[in-house]
Amino acid sequence: MYNVITISRQFGSGGRELGRRLAEELGFAYYDDEIIAEISKRTSLSEEYVQQIVEHRPVTLMPITIGHSFYPVQHPLMEQSQNIYQEQAEIIREMSEKSPCVIVGCCADYILRDKKLLRLFVFADMQSKIERCRLKGPDEEKLTEKQLRKQILKVEKNRAKYYEFYTGRAWGDKLNYDLLINTTNTDIKLIVSVIKRMFDKNVLAEAEAKE
Amino acid sequence: MYNVITISRQFGSGGRELGRRLAEELGFAYYDDEIIAEISKRTSLSEEYVQQIVEHRPVTLMPITIGHSFYPVQHPLMEQSQNIYQEQAEIIREMSEKSPCVIVGCCADYILRDKKLLRLFVFADMQSKIERCRLKGPDEEKLTEKQLRKQILKVEKNRAKYYEFYTGRAWGDKLNYDLLINTTNTDIKLIVSVIKRMFDKNVLAEAEAKE
Repeated sequence: MYNVITISRQFGSGGRELGRRLAEELGFAYYDDEIIAEISKRTSLSEEYVQQIVEHRPVTLMPITIGHSFYPVQHPLMEQSQNIYQEQAEIIREMSEKSPCVIVGCCADYILRDKKLLRLFVFADMQSKIERCRLKGPDEEKLTEKQLRKQILKVEKNRAKYYEFYTGRAWGDKLNYDLLINTTNTDIKLIVSVIKRMFDKNVLAEAEAKE
Repeated sequence: MYNVITISRQFGSGGRELGRRLAEELGFAYYDDEIIAEISKRTSLSEEYVQQIVEHRPVTLMPITIGHSFYPVQHPLMEQSQNIYQEQAEIIREMSEKSPCVIVGCCADYILRDKKLLRLFVFADMQSKIERCRLKGPDEEKLTEKQLRKQILKVEKNRAKYYEFYTGRAWGDKLNYDLLINTTNTDIKLIVSVIKRMFDKNVLAEAEAKE
């Protein structure tokens, strides 16, 4: 039985909606922006700043040459980014201990890799992501299709780089997830209803009873 | 509501077992080797030969140079491979019309792309595939881990090439499937019980009733 569901998602794929609905249906806690708020509280950095660090790729180490050897030099922004990641990992571990929960993003699938997790990856085709972004808010409504496409690709590139930097794994690689869900032309409510069944004791008993 | 489920699968991932059990649970027809047998009947080629063509990558066109131009020359084996593919496509279309069914492999997801399908891709990590292969039969039992790994990679390479040749799509690319299922450390019976729920009228009604 899983106590923790982690959700990685392409931008505009409806992964957050899926996570929120799933948490509601299962009576699980739901963590997304709450993680950013908690990091902000513990580090005394603004939520906006923390969000920016977590959503953007970390500043890479800049090696400088002294004589014939290379020495990595710690960049102050890099150090802060690493501190934020440490806090993030600590908070996610605490949350996962407190109660059954759904955690969106934040490398949670990697941070909690020693636990029994249900790891979901939610994706969709570009057209479907553009349409979902348009429905999200007035800011996105104003953008052209080309601008939205560019924004989606940029956010996903940053997510992939952040994930890869801290986990050493490829974001979106099938083997890092238990179930990958294509939300193109699919009703998220239906997907939630189905995944919910994985937590249904009758289904589990039924599956075990079969030879 | 889906009437046809297509299953693409990595070698040793348990995709066939998943398909067979799902068909049983749903009362759907199940097609796998039946397709090969039917092609063999219609083309008067032996089942072994048809299997070999379908499981192996097609012979590529060999351009020859005449003067300064390149002319593709039709290789007889290539022609036969294409005839087999045509028969395969025809049989799959007929089967999908006859009754609700589960079809394993054979580019069915592409051949039936204009229909409402549930397209599954079943995969697992290498260790798990090696262990499943070992359980399959006496031939595999005798192979070393290294030999099994080599065999798995070869079969998958051929599947990918066959699929890509006839569909122009990348085998295993997330966007070609609705659901990608990792069977590493997972009980196939549990997965079947859960996917079965996608066809449960109560689940569908429940999902639709939610705002």
